[in-house]
Amino acid sequence: MPDKQPDNSQLADFFPIVNWLKNYTRRDFDGDIFAGIITAILLVPQGIAYAILAGLPPQMGLYASILPTAIYALLGTSRTLSVGPVSIAAIMIASALATPEVSALGNPVQSALILAAESGLIMLMMALLRMGNLVNFISHPVLAGFTSGAALLIIASQIPQLAGLKPPSCGFDEACYQHYLQGVNVASLALSMSALSLLIFFGKPLSKLLKKTTLPLTLITAISKCGPLLTVFLATFATTFFDLDSGYKVAMVGEVPSGFPAISLDFIDITKWQPLLPSATFIALIAYIESVAIAKVTANLRGEKIIPNQELIALGVANLVTAVSGGMAVAGGFSRTMVNFSAGARTQMAMLIAATILGFSVIFFSAWFANIPKAALAAIIIVAVFRLVRVRHIFHTLNYDRGDGVAELVTLLGVLALGIEQGITLGIILTLTSQLRKTSQPHIAVVGRIPQTEHFRNIKRHSVETWHHLLLVRIDESLTFANVSYVEDYLADELSRQPNIKHVVLIFTSVSDIDATALEALEAINHDLQASGKTLNISEAKGPVLDKLAKTDFLEQLKPGKVFFRTEDAAKELG
Amino acid sequence: MPDKQPDNSQLADFFPIVNWLKNYTRRDFDGDIFAGIITAILLVPQGIAYAILAGLPPQMGLYASILPTAIYALLGTSRTLSVGPVSIAAIMIASALATPEVSALGNPVQSALILAAESGLIMLMMALLRMGNLVNFISHPVLAGFTSGAALLIIASQIPQLAGLKPPSCGFDEACYQHYLQGVNVASLALSMSALSLLIFFGKPLSKLLKKTTLPLTLITAISKCGPLLTVFLATFATTFFDLDSGYKVAMVGEVPSGFPAISLDFIDITKWQPLLPSATFIALIAYIESVAIAKVTANLRGEKIIPNQELIALGVANLVTAVSGGMAVAGGFSRTMVNFSAGARTQMAMLIAATILGFSVIFFSAWFANIPKAALAAIIIVAVFRLVRVRHIFHTLNYDRGDGVAELVTLLGVLALGIEQGITLGIILTLTSQLRKTSQPHIAVVGRIPQTEHFRNIKRHSVETWHHLLLVRIDESLTFANVSYVEDYLADELSRQPNIKHVVLIFTSVSDIDATALEALEAINHDLQASGKTLNISEAKGPVLDKLAKTDFLEQLKPGKVFFRTEDAAKELG
Repeated sequence: MPDKQPDNSQLADFFPIVNWLKNYTRRDFDGDIFAGIITAILLVPQGIAYAILAGLPPQMGLYASILPTAIYALLGTSRTLSVGPVSIAAIMIASALATPEVSALGNPVQSALILAAESGLIMLMMALLRMGNLVNFISHPVLAGFTSGAALLIIASQIPQLAGLKPPSCGFDEACYQHYLQGVNVASLALSMSALSLLIFFGKPLSKLLKKTTLPLTLITAISKCGPLLTVFLATFATTFFDLDSGYKVAMVGEVPSGFPAISLDFIDITKWQPLLPSATFIALIAYIESVAIAKVTANLRGEKIIPNQELIALGVANLVTAVSGGMAVAGGFSRTMVNFSAGARTQMAMLIAATILGFSVIFFSAWFANIPKAALAAIIIVAVFRLVRVRHIFHTLNYDRGDGVAELVTLLGVLALGIEQGITLGIILTLTSQLRKTSQPHIAVVGRIPQTEHFRNIKRHSVETWHHLLLVRIDESLTFANVSYVEDYLADELSRQPNIKHVVLIFTSVSDIDATALEALEAINHDLQASGKTLNISEAKGPVLDKLAKTDFLEQLKPGKVFFRTEDAAKELG
Repeated sequence: MPDKQPDNSQLADFFPIVNWLKNYTRRDFDGDIFAGIITAILLVPQGIAYAILAGLPPQMGLYASILPTAIYALLGTSRTLSVGPVSIAAIMIASALATPEVSALGNPVQSALILAAESGLIMLMMALLRMGNLVNFISHPVLAGFTSGAALLIIASQIPQLAGLKPPSCGFDEACYQHYLQGVNVASLALSMSALSLLIFFGKPLSKLLKKTTLPLTLITAISKCGPLLTVFLATFATTFFDLDSGYKVAMVGEVPSGFPAISLDFIDITKWQPLLPSATFIALIAYIESVAIAKVTANLRGEKIIPNQELIALGVANLVTAVSGGMAVAGGFSRTMVNFSAGARTQMAMLIAATILGFSVIFFSAWFANIPKAALAAIIIVAVFRLVRVRHIFHTLNYDRGDGVAELVTLLGVLALGIEQGITLGIILTLTSQLRKTSQPHIAVVGRIPQTEHFRNIKRHSVETWHHLLLVRIDESLTFANVSYVEDYLADELSRQPNIKHVVLIFTSVSDIDATALEALEAINHDLQASGKTLNISEAKGPVLDKLAKTDFLEQLKPGKVFFRTEDAAKELG
């Protein structure tokens, strides 16, 4: 029996790249190869820098820029997202490795690989459960507060590195700080200050200057994005030339093993998976949310479409592959993606090219990486994450929506004071609780009839007929455990104001469902009304709601209360 | 300057009993004293039994029935709730004390006192934050599943006690079980079987028999509620008479210190508070929710009102007082409250009387309690909690609402398989997520104009006029982070179906708020529409929404899109 050929459309569902390659042109390739080279130029210093930020050997950042980047290119639905090591994930890995439970495990490299693998598995599980829309439950202000907080933590962690220092561990001891600051390495400081100046110049000032020339815009973009690589190159050159390493004890990246990453499952150690799981969950969540957010930005600019669930699959497999090939956890990077996009990338072919370049660079140039001074990398990190700190955004949000602004501020302060995972948890809980509080107060209106019509409207907004013994109440939402007690209280208030009422009619035009808790509450309301000689009635209930109620004895309990088809009928009979 | 007299109404707010006592009559007192005595008769065996169930010395249950009961009588808004030791809180205390972190603290009595004090403080904090309505976020099915699961755990814990055994610790080792079962104490088994028979007879059969006599109903209730006390009395008598203690090694309650509980703050040890906090939070939550649920049942039967926040205060102070007076955590007990109510209690005076009786009993009769056989108490507990196991209720719920039924079942199984706190957490997360999922799908309708009117209605339900270039979309909920991406997807779908559309009008009749995330999404929608030569417009926005939008540059961004006062205006201009 011959094997069935896989259906092409199914193949394309799983490998979106197939769709693009069908109509791939020479012009697309021109854009892609240029963008791929530029992005690779950015990937090398970022890869090394973010690995060091995470407290890992430099090659883990480089390896994370090869196979995972290529895997996303095959599986992802974004044509321009550049997947690889990112700053926020790096600081999350650093924070996870620093917790007592995890550092007790020893071997941080193995822990980092397990973190990546677990994050990947969690994303795949989320894809299986079709939880792609989960991102909707983290509000943008919480995400913005989180990003600002994490970026501030990154900057704080890199400032000592600028001066060749380790992070201080002095607490409030002034003498300790005096001693600490004596450790400042002047050569490192000089290097990092030069690096900072160069990087800042390569930002806006250089672009502005170049825009006055006749150079094409893509070339201007390309040149201005070479800042980090040039910085690394010059810093490395200066270190070697002035013998800063042994002469001035400037901290170096150190030996980077040469060659393509080996594929290995050696990191698997079931006993270590459990303590890393909470951090892996947070990394998976943030990596996914940030990646989709970035992917959507560029996709919207070109009218392309991101499919959240396929993104979970692509990022999940990329993280499994990074673990297997000795890399750190990966996500879509904002600056790289924007560079890739504005350098003219048309498809993920650009990222396949970038990954290939990275592959060659670890095979042929890894010896050169050893002499990169860490101070220069610290400068690169600080400049890269500086734009993520958006303190003014908090004031904008506060001004627009107080609740959202408070959530953003609390998340930022939570990240700084309590830690990365605690901060975002706090923000999520805060917004979900306030969301629940809002949904627990459904819109309810006492209605009356507009004279000479069969229309019933809110008595507060329209001049309508009402009846002495009849209370018509329209409930504008489905009845659930979260809001039914509000309805109970509303009715009780209304009845205590109008003791003459003999019949209550609940108008169910907008009620699409009544859950078990709400049914019990309705039974209690009916019971209380009957005990005081009143009746409960229902009008305009939808078919599915009536079907559900018919499965219980509630409609029996209502008697002599009735179910009316139209509110008009209820008014005629009870009014 | 003379002191001001406290305002009577303020005093009554804090001490609801003041209101009742103003109009207190002789008839009320007759009801109260009878109910108080009957409830006290039930409180003695329950107090001892639940303390032993919690793994605590018997007097902690008795002490919890004196001052805390009296304090609730003064502060509570329910006239008939009987506060004291309850079975569910007892198993939660037992489970908390059994966790590795807590048992590592040593001194379970101190831990139990700290648990009670912390629960009290948490309730008071919830009162301060006016979180009385928090109960609405736990659905009835989750609560029912939790109660059934906890009751099954209680029964499972007591079955070995019936035969004088400790709980088995054999796992799957058959030989171990054979050895274990050889430890059965025949005398204990005989005692507990007799006790079970007597208790079952004192349930429905005796009431039925007595109802055939001419005895008044209250007396029948009273007699049938004496089962537990009679069981304890007979079992103790049998133990003493047949010398079961030393002769047959039947397990006894053991010495109960004589005298009124001493007030002491010795239990306070700040270092132990942190590990107990999670369990205390759960106990506070469940104690509060169960108490209010029970209080509401009896209040509804008599048309009285329960004030949730005042209940938090009353139960919070009661738990602080129980800790200070050496008792276990307290809550409102279902069976006791129903006994109190049906025995004719009119006010909390009944509970003041019961507490006084308990006070005398620990002063004068505590020596007698030492000889109560534990097997008889196990029988009392099993009979008391058996009615809490409502497996059939799950099928009812499943039949009425699948989601609720699954939540109930998962909570029950979670309690049995994972533990008490884990089970209810699972249930709460399950229902909150499904609730959020529902609120993330707001009702949206494409509308058209009913000919010859200015009314706009759903095109799916009415025959209406539409326009070739104009899409009128009514959004029936406030726009928030949780639902705005659904709106985005809905619009994108609609526009891909109708590529001819030039103008989109969002009708905001039901939109009372737009949060920061939703604003960003609207900006993105507008940006995308403009990029493809279309406009976004708004109609019928409420004042507060427009005020909020006016603080941003969104209305500027909309141009040439407009804000229309009436949808009719939009139809005239764009249609």
